[in-house]
Amino acid sequence: MNLDLWTKAPAAFGVLALVIAAALYMRIAALPEGNDTMKRIAGYIREGSMAFLAREYKVLAVYSVVVFCAMAATPSLGVIAGAWFLTGAFLSLLAGFIGMKAATLANVRTANAASDNSKGTAKAAALLTALDGGAVMGLCVAGLSLMGLVAVYVLYKDSADPKQLGTMLHAFAVGASSIALFARIGGGIYTKAADVGADIAGKVVENIPEDDPRNPGVIADNVGDNVGDVAGMGADIYESLVAAIVATMAIGLTTKPEQLQHLLTDGFKAADGQPVVAKTVAVALPLILSGIGLAVSIAGIFMARALKNFAPAAVLRSAMVLPPLLVVAITYFILPMFGVQQGVTVALAGGAIGGAMIGLLTEYYTGHYGPVKSVAEAAKTGAGTNVIQGMAVGMQSVFVCLLLIAGVAMLANFAMGDLGMYGIGIAAVGMLSGTAIVMTVDAYGPVSDNAGGIAEMSGLDPSVREITDELDAVGNTTAAIGKGFAIGSATLTVVALFSAFSLEVNHTRLLAGLKEMELAIDRPEILIGLLIGAVLPFIVAAATMTAVGKAAGAIVLEIKRQFDTIPGLREGTAEPQPKAIVDIATAAALSEMILPGIVAVLGPVLIGYILGPAALAGALAGALAVGASLSLFMANAGGAWDNAKKYIEKGGLPGHPKRSDTHKAAVIGDTVGDPFKDTSGPGVAILIKVMSVVSLLIAPIIALKG
Amino acid sequence: MNLDLWTKAPAAFGVLALVIAAALYMRIAALPEGNDTMKRIAGYIREGSMAFLAREYKVLAVYSVVVFCAMAATPSLGVIAGAWFLTGAFLSLLAGFIGMKAATLANVRTANAASDNSKGTAKAAALLTALDGGAVMGLCVAGLSLMGLVAVYVLYKDSADPKQLGTMLHAFAVGASSIALFARIGGGIYTKAADVGADIAGKVVENIPEDDPRNPGVIADNVGDNVGDVAGMGADIYESLVAAIVATMAIGLTTKPEQLQHLLTDGFKAADGQPVVAKTVAVALPLILSGIGLAVSIAGIFMARALKNFAPAAVLRSAMVLPPLLVVAITYFILPMFGVQQGVTVALAGGAIGGAMIGLLTEYYTGHYGPVKSVAEAAKTGAGTNVIQGMAVGMQSVFVCLLLIAGVAMLANFAMGDLGMYGIGIAAVGMLSGTAIVMTVDAYGPVSDNAGGIAEMSGLDPSVREITDELDAVGNTTAAIGKGFAIGSATLTVVALFSAFSLEVNHTRLLAGLKEMELAIDRPEILIGLLIGAVLPFIVAAATMTAVGKAAGAIVLEIKRQFDTIPGLREGTAEPQPKAIVDIATAAALSEMILPGIVAVLGPVLIGYILGPAALAGALAGALAVGASLSLFMANAGGAWDNAKKYIEKGGLPGHPKRSDTHKAAVIGDTVGDPFKDTSGPGVAILIKVMSVVSLLIAPIIALKG
Repeated sequence: MNLDLWTKAPAAFGVLALVIAAALYMRIAALPEGNDTMKRIAGYIREGSMAFLAREYKVLAVYSVVVFCAMAATPSLGVIAGAWFLTGAFLSLLAGFIGMKAATLANVRTANAASDNSKGTAKAAALLTALDGGAVMGLCVAGLSLMGLVAVYVLYKDSADPKQLGTMLHAFAVGASSIALFARIGGGIYTKAADVGADIAGKVVENIPEDDPRNPGVIADNVGDNVGDVAGMGADIYESLVAAIVATMAIGLTTKPEQLQHLLTDGFKAADGQPVVAKTVAVALPLILSGIGLAVSIAGIFMARALKNFAPAAVLRSAMVLPPLLVVAITYFILPMFGVQQGVTVALAGGAIGGAMIGLLTEYYTGHYGPVKSVAEAAKTGAGTNVIQGMAVGMQSVFVCLLLIAGVAMLANFAMGDLGMYGIGIAAVGMLSGTAIVMTVDAYGPVSDNAGGIAEMSGLDPSVREITDELDAVGNTTAAIGKGFAIGSATLTVVALFSAFSLEVNHTRLLAGLKEMELAIDRPEILIGLLIGAVLPFIVAAATMTAVGKAAGAIVLEIKRQFDTIPGLREGTAEPQPKAIVDIATAAALSEMILPGIVAVLGPVLIGYILGPAALAGALAGALAVGASLSLFMANAGGAWDNAKKYIEKGGLPGHPKRSDTHKAAVIGDTVGDPFKDTSGPGVAILIKVMSVVSLLIAPIIALKG
Repeated sequence: MNLDLWTKAPAAFGVLALVIAAALYMRIAALPEGNDTMKRIAGYIREGSMAFLAREYKVLAVYSVVVFCAMAATPSLGVIAGAWFLTGAFLSLLAGFIGMKAATLANVRTANAASDNSKGTAKAAALLTALDGGAVMGLCVAGLSLMGLVAVYVLYKDSADPKQLGTMLHAFAVGASSIALFARIGGGIYTKAADVGADIAGKVVENIPEDDPRNPGVIADNVGDNVGDVAGMGADIYESLVAAIVATMAIGLTTKPEQLQHLLTDGFKAADGQPVVAKTVAVALPLILSGIGLAVSIAGIFMARALKNFAPAAVLRSAMVLPPLLVVAITYFILPMFGVQQGVTVALAGGAIGGAMIGLLTEYYTGHYGPVKSVAEAAKTGAGTNVIQGMAVGMQSVFVCLLLIAGVAMLANFAMGDLGMYGIGIAAVGMLSGTAIVMTVDAYGPVSDNAGGIAEMSGLDPSVREITDELDAVGNTTAAIGKGFAIGSATLTVVALFSAFSLEVNHTRLLAGLKEMELAIDRPEILIGLLIGAVLPFIVAAATMTAVGKAAGAIVLEIKRQFDTIPGLREGTAEPQPKAIVDIATAAALSEMILPGIVAVLGPVLIGYILGPAALAGALAGALAVGASLSLFMANAGGAWDNAKKYIEKGGLPGHPKRSDTHKAAVIGDTVGDPFKDTSGPGVAILIKVMSVVSLLIAPIIALKG
């Protein structure tokens, strides 16, 4: 089997993905935008989103230059590693930029497609437009990340210095992770500040319905969907894929050859009669499997498009769950060609099935089932009991989801025998093998949501809103599945990165002629590190929650000011000034994302340099335990409150209609849940990945200490 | 130096403590109770408290018998270890019983003392009565725990089987920990269900002021103070002291002799010219230091009593902070007599000073300072922002407090060189050296609180309530300091127990001729265990929070029923039926404490037996990281909400008085905070200790697996 060819295939699929993305982009751009009001509103949203991105990218440019200089000045890293860091970051920004541009073109065109039902095809046309809008992001994210990683692999795999490939991969991953952290936290603060601010001002202060065109905060709310749920999510998933692949490759690079030999079936020889080198296969495999995943996902996107006339919920759900399973089946047949043992298929299947199961469990805990109903019930006795019950549900979900993830890790570990950690990395790769289509469906949601907002603000016929609402509702349930893949793979990836870190430390020590470091878990340094690591997720969670609160407060004041000072606004005869709101949210998001970013990037560097690698290992373990559970808790509690409110609004509790005391209590829970689920929860999940990736990068430098 | 004599001294101080407790008990009992109404109300509270204890003890008896049988049937434990388990449990129950009896005698007598100001000494007399009521608990807790441990030590220190002393100590500690878990969780559910239930019903449903005698929930609320804050807290602190001492002794027992030699100054010989055995000293030292702590604390109690005419806040605060420092000074002078190096003094001082600092930080985050004011401010924009800000403050406090604890551990580790883990245990012992007086002041709080309730319900002169309110306010701030000692020492103790566990595993393996187990933190088993361990605190937190909510709901319904069906109750001409409320709270508390208890005790057993000692080590680390941070978060967020509400009630926000929307928003935060700070937070803190102690007990049994 020609391994070289197989490892270049992912890049080829990446190119294909980008070509398809370009075609879809052009198709969307060519669609009609609708009437002038729609154009104007869509223009506001697009401008606001792009203005945010432009200003965010300036901050990220400064950050990137600083880190580049730091890396260039560090002897064992140097300018080249710095350049790969920049490349990893740049490709993330590029995917985010193209994807969000497409989303902000697709939203208004989705609304317009939904408004022309002359042939009875409005729903299918609207679905297709929203889906294509999301697919641009999905294809760019998966395509660019694989192309970047293949480039690093091809350039350095035969390097004379055995550590070069690892270093460049780690640098690339640090670029990807940093951007993800900032984009997710910045976007998350923006979207929730605008959401909470517009809600409080619109509903409580001024008493106008949601998406009312007079409320200047509504545009900012729609911008938030794009910068948070499209651009932020895109950077997040780009990073997930990169980190999972790099973690597994890194384990392959640093595991001792005699141990790595277990990856292969005994006595296997390649077609040309040469013995196969286990390390070569171990390092290439994550790329190859992800390439297959991309190819399958592309097919999946076209299948979903072809099924546009069927029930969207079923189609999109299957589109997310099936591709990983197909990847598993293909893997089963190709592994023998490389002489790789089938434990890899088991680990991959564990990841693929586990990811889907976590998605379904997430839906159970945050959809209209028992747990959410209990939260809604609790609202009958007030906001206090509503909040308590929502937190309890979030905590219960931690129990079930994290045990399931542990189960996947156990299966992968068991299936791979002596190469358990490599297996856990493969499980994460398996969970993410549907990245392109998962991201497509994830981005489809906010496009539909935006379309609904535009329809409402443009005063289109209620039948339009009905269609967009249905599409949006589907997006809400598929979002839960997407979240399952994201959180499950993040946890497994961090476990694998953790192992890669300590392997790297000891690999470096052995190369330097030192004895291996004993990373026994009962060393005081490790336990002290554990306590230090445990606090970091709390810093990020606290900082992001207060940021949302502060920014929302400023937005409420500005909306009040506009209603008080703009003559005719209250009566609907004058225009609001959405740009002022967009500015406030942008400024707040960008300034408040700095502290969490510094904690994530500098935290491990300081711990590693000052307290040494053992304490850093402890800190990573502490951050993993707290971060994985805290982010699950926050994401799912937030989802439960959100849907409990919606459940009451839909009449789920007879005698407790919208605007009743019970509903008001549920709204308070939802307000608490907003930053929980869309800012702090995802922020904490990325934090632990950034910490792990940064630790991996600096591992060779601090390895010789103590 | 006669080590034997020194190790018996703690028992002698224990006897002295019990004699003093008996004298104080008799002094309280001889004081006048006041008028008939007071007697009747106090009788209700006493009966309710004792009825709860009686029923709780029945449940605990069943639990104890089951565990005893399990231990008796386990070959390496046996009947004798089971008997020590029972002894550890029984002494805890005994201390709780006597202490709570004294507290329920002292409450009404404190109110009565406050009501006779003919000689201008009412405040001093009331303070003295409340303090003596608390001192009975403080002296019993410290005295009985030390007597029990000395008994184990003296009986087994020269045993032919080198493992016997350790096994019996662990069994004793498991007894102490189990009771603490059940008492804290059961008492916590009771007290918060009654508090929340009575509050919601009294304030919201029926619109009668707090402590109104017509509200049948008020008696239950006062009972709750006794079963939660006196009996529950007593069992908690008893366990803390036992666990800290046992952890340090266990490290001494299982550390390799050549390493342990570093404890001693080179070439030291005892007065009789014999060389000193390091292990003997290492094992005896925690007992000796705790004995000194008890002696100093007894002196402190008498000092505080003598200063009854001075400002109670300053006196009680100093009484908590100074004794540990005095113990450090004494230790500095006696260590050379045993040839022990002064690193022990440094570690001890780190614990003593660190504990006080955590206490002061806790007070900063939960008292009327910046953080609490920010929570109160956030209530202006509604309950949602109030809840978010309270959580943010709680999270920030995790950062500061846990880093401080890590700092103490670092200092102790550094000071003791190769014996870092032993040093961390000593730091925990140092933090708890003032146990008797800390518990005294802790129990003084609810006695004063009860006295205020009795004064209100009996319609005494408002001047009486003024005095009890002042005493109660002092109790609230000293409670923060007590909490600091408790949480700080719990975290350090778990770190030490963790080390004791892995030392025990490898000690057992070496004795059995196996090679040491590699507990490298990057083993898949350990990382999988880490994820499993991380979920356990969330299970306990979720279960306890929902338990409070459910029980409070049932209480509200019963109070409504009484107002609806008892003629004349609303008008104040008929008596309420508090017993029905007490019954509901008791039944709920007892049934809901089962699940968390089983998780804590069976969790480590199942993980250890099924997945082996490495996974169990990982699970303990995961539970430690999550449990320490989660309990701090919940305790301090709860404290911040509570005091934000009180801050508004005291007029801290001009223009936002009591019963304003801002105040109502703050009340919602407080409702969320009630189970946070008094049920789930402390429950999670004990959970990780129970898990560690149980793991230590089963370590020799599972050590030979894998």
